[in-house]
Amino acid sequence: MHNPFFKNNGPFKVSDILSILNINNTNLDKDQNITDIKDLFTSNTNDITFFHSKKYNEIAKNTKASFCLTTENFKNYLPKNCKPIIVNNVLISTSLVTAKFYPDSINDNFDHTVNEINDTEFNKKIKFGKNVLIGKNVKFGRNCLIGHNTIIEKNVSIGNNCSIGSNCIIRNTFIKDNVKVLDNCIIGKHGFGFFPNDTKNLRYPHIGIVIIEDNCEIGCGSTIDRGSMSNTIIGKNTFLDNQIHIAHNVKIGQNSIIAGQVGIAGSSIIGNNVKIGGQAGISGHLKIGNNVEIAGGSGVIKDIADNSKIMGYPAKYIRDFLKENK
Amino acid sequence: MHNPFFKNNGPFKVSDILSILNINNTNLDKDQNITDIKDLFTSNTNDITFFHSKKYNEIAKNTKASFCLTTENFKNYLPKNCKPIIVNNVLISTSLVTAKFYPDSINDNFDHTVNEINDTEFNKKIKFGKNVLIGKNVKFGRNCLIGHNTIIEKNVSIGNNCSIGSNCIIRNTFIKDNVKVLDNCIIGKHGFGFFPNDTKNLRYPHIGIVIIEDNCEIGCGSTIDRGSMSNTIIGKNTFLDNQIHIAHNVKIGQNSIIAGQVGIAGSSIIGNNVKIGGQAGISGHLKIGNNVEIAGGSGVIKDIADNSKIMGYPAKYIRDFLKENK
Amino acid sequence: MHNPFFKNNGPFKVSDILSILNINNTNLDKDQNITDIKDLFTSNTNDITFFHSKKYNEIAKNTKASFCLTTENFKNYLPKNCKPIIVNNVLISTSLVTAKFYPDSINDNFDHTVNEINDTEFNKKIKFGKNVLIGKNVKFGRNCLIGHNTIIEKNVSIGNNCSIGSNCIIRNTFIKDNVKVLDNCIIGKHGFGFFPNDTKNLRYPHIGIVIIEDNCEIGCGSTIDRGSMSNTIIGKNTFLDNQIHIAHNVKIGQNSIIAGQVGIAGSSIIGNNVKIGGQAGISGHLKIGNNVEIAGGSGVIKDIADNSKIMGYPAKYIRDFLKENK
Repeated sequence: MHNPFFKNNGPFKVSDILSILNINNTNLDKDQNITDIKDLFTSNTNDITFFHSKKYNEIAKNTKASFCLTTENFKNYLPKNCKPIIVNNVLISTSLVTAKFYPDSINDNFDHTVNEINDTEFNKKIKFGKNVLIGKNVKFGRNCLIGHNTIIEKNVSIGNNCSIGSNCIIRNTFIKDNVKVLDNCIIGKHGFGFFPNDTKNLRYPHIGIVIIEDNCEIGCGSTIDRGSMSNTIIGKNTFLDNQIHIAHNVKIGQNSIIAGQVGIAGSSIIGNNVKIGGQAGISGHLKIGNNVEIAGGSGVIKDIADNSKIMGYPAKYIRDFLKENK
Repeated sequence: MHNPFFKNNGPFKVSDILSILNINNTNLDKDQNITDIKDLFTSNTNDITFFHSKKYNEIAKNTKASFCLTTENFKNYLPKNCKPIIVNNVLISTSLVTAKFYPDSINDNFDHTVNEINDTEFNKKIKFGKNVLIGKNVKFGRNCLIGHNTIIEKNVSIGNNCSIGSNCIIRNTFIKDNVKVLDNCIIGKHGFGFFPNDTKNLRYPHIGIVIIEDNCEIGCGSTIDRGSMSNTIIGKNTFLDNQIHIAHNVKIGQNSIIAGQVGIAGSSIIGNNVKIGGQAGISGHLKIGNNVEIAGGSGVIKDIADNSKIMGYPAKYIRDFLKENK
Repeated sequence: MHNPFFKNNGPFKVSDILSILNINNTNLDKDQNITDIKDLFTSNTNDITFFHSKKYNEIAKNTKASFCLTTENFKNYLPKNCKPIIVNNVLISTSLVTAKFYPDSINDNFDHTVNEINDTEFNKKIKFGKNVLIGKNVKFGRNCLIGHNTIIEKNVSIGNNCSIGSNCIIRNTFIKDNVKVLDNCIIGKHGFGFFPNDTKNLRYPHIGIVIIEDNCEIGCGSTIDRGSMSNTIIGKNTFLDNQIHIAHNVKIGQNSIIAGQVGIAGSSIIGNNVKIGGQAGISGHLKIGNNVEIAGGSGVIKDIADNSKIMGYPAKYIRDFLKENK
């Protein structure tokens, strides 16, 4: 999916990239252009990529990238077309280079391109409340409603028959058809991702977006953060209750039901037809299967197989949990 | 209590009701009028009611309703004055019929009747901030304050000496005297109630309201959902801290104290003088007695007797919990 | 640190103070002036202080205050310069006297001194969104941004290079340099502190403030309450994720990282370099050491030593917790 939210400020010369990494002694052609930064799989000729874990050995062997941020340990996996740039910390270096290409993806300062909706083309197309603000290049389908004081920031796209509540802020987001976003939601801000540093933490860029599929409902006061490299996705016909927090890169399947005050940490993947009770928490980087039921208040800290019913902290099979906790 | 929020679009003819239920083969007089839909106990001649659980056998025998949505199993409990309409799923059918009578009770689209308070009769009666929006037929007592950007939607009634914070949204709600609602609260939206369906979930109507009794305080960023058939009630002199979620149909007694980030699921009933610690969660359809103390972080999944002190997940007597968790 | 937020309405005569406490039979000079109310340690000649716990015996012996609210049990610890005023409940009496000196510290009614930023001196100095409201005597450093619909109430001070999001409300707060406050935060309202009373709870005054040190980030929808007698402090370079609640008097050290939906109850002190996982809860009046790691979902109910890694509810060493919960 094309991402209109973060403008690529490249290409940059190899020397520009080496300079932000404080690297001098290399044999690289410093005048060569680098077009973009992407992961090992999606990058192409003239792109730079990054490689920091043996999980990606096989993908690395076939990358089409021309350059790769990596370490001495990993450089020999790279094909001939891809020249290694050796760094101490691959993720921090990747962050710095990504920030060079996409400087707008680091901070979520308010959108100064917005206009009062009365002064835009939408003043007749959609039904809206007082004090609605619309950024540049926003798109709406048919039959949409937007509540009072809501801010739709630049480039956001909203489908047909959507109802957005009052006091919402939506940025870096694609919303499909028949979606309801209730009052006070904040959707599309960057995730809670940064490199801790004792004098000043280093934020890493978030160039992913939020995608909300058809027929979803998002409850009041919920926050859905956009992805860092990939996207945050709420699947078709999934309903979220109030005060839910969905972190960056999370992907939720179809027909799932998530009750109030649930939190899902970064990069976890939730299946279809999943039911999650109120206040449950799901740790980061987990895979929750299809048709899983998670009792309210549970704390899930490992992957959960399809069709499981779980409860407790750490969450286990409901049967076992209730037997142990009579 | 009279409910001015949801207009009854009836009466409808029996044939109108049968048509939305896809029922053809009946002996009913299709031209007879049906006035309203109510529960077994409160319905009257010419009303339609519903009956789906043996818990209600005794009440069903004496209902005054003229029609009842029910199943083959239950129809024989009904008195002669009440004609059964046999359906596959009583609750879904009830939802469809309720939606026919009260179409405005399903969606919480923004209130387009609001005006800037400066353009209303209240511009001299109360003290208010900037950008305050007031719906049609709102009522205020004496000595009220309303903060900036707050939206009081149509028909809401607020008593004497109330202070409403900034950035609040209040709809479908009666607020009595000396109540404080702090900033950023959302009060009176529909609950998280719907019939899951793989292509498009079916929302059920919420024709209940929120009632906040005298001397209550509601903390910042809290959400209180209105009831589906009954009301959501916060009892006299009960204080809620920040970021609390109170679901539909919940009833909280007097003089209770509920700390930050607590969640109470749908239809639970909380007694008087109850203390609930931060982040505790209470499952739906429970009864928590008077003078109960629930420790912070607890997960309550069964009824709790008067005067109990409980802790843990699942919550048990504090003494037992602490002994087992040294 | 000078606190410009709560104006001292004193001095008051001894007779004024006795009158709100309903005390008649004393030998005190009823015409003597009392300047201020402070704690045992910081009070000076002509101040009134309070003393209700043997923890403070040693400090009491050296107080410079001229008057002290206390009980028969404690009065003999006071030095000659300090005359006891015997009351039934020291804390309630202190609350009443503090309210007399600082009547504005009890209620958080909206700030009616605000103006649209376009009508203030800041309209050229900072970059701002639509509908921004600024109270009297607010201060900003260089290079600040303020998002749409945000309210900065009277006397708030914000340093250099700060970015405040949209829909925020900030009062009674000092923000230092390079701080980001994301959308929808409520900072500086009074804490959840009051004396329960069956007819009408008695709120106690909150004359503390919130201080946010350099380089902090506060996530969307978070609430940070101001202190009652002391201040609520977020240390340098500490980052908070979304939907976090920080209660009154909490002090968080430097370089700490607090994930989404965490709650920290009143008066707890968190060290430097502390990491707290999502949805964890920390009870009130605890001391969490430096370099502590608290797993997501944990419930912490006792002090935690430096360098500990803990998990569970009640939280214990991670190693032990995981062993017991295989």
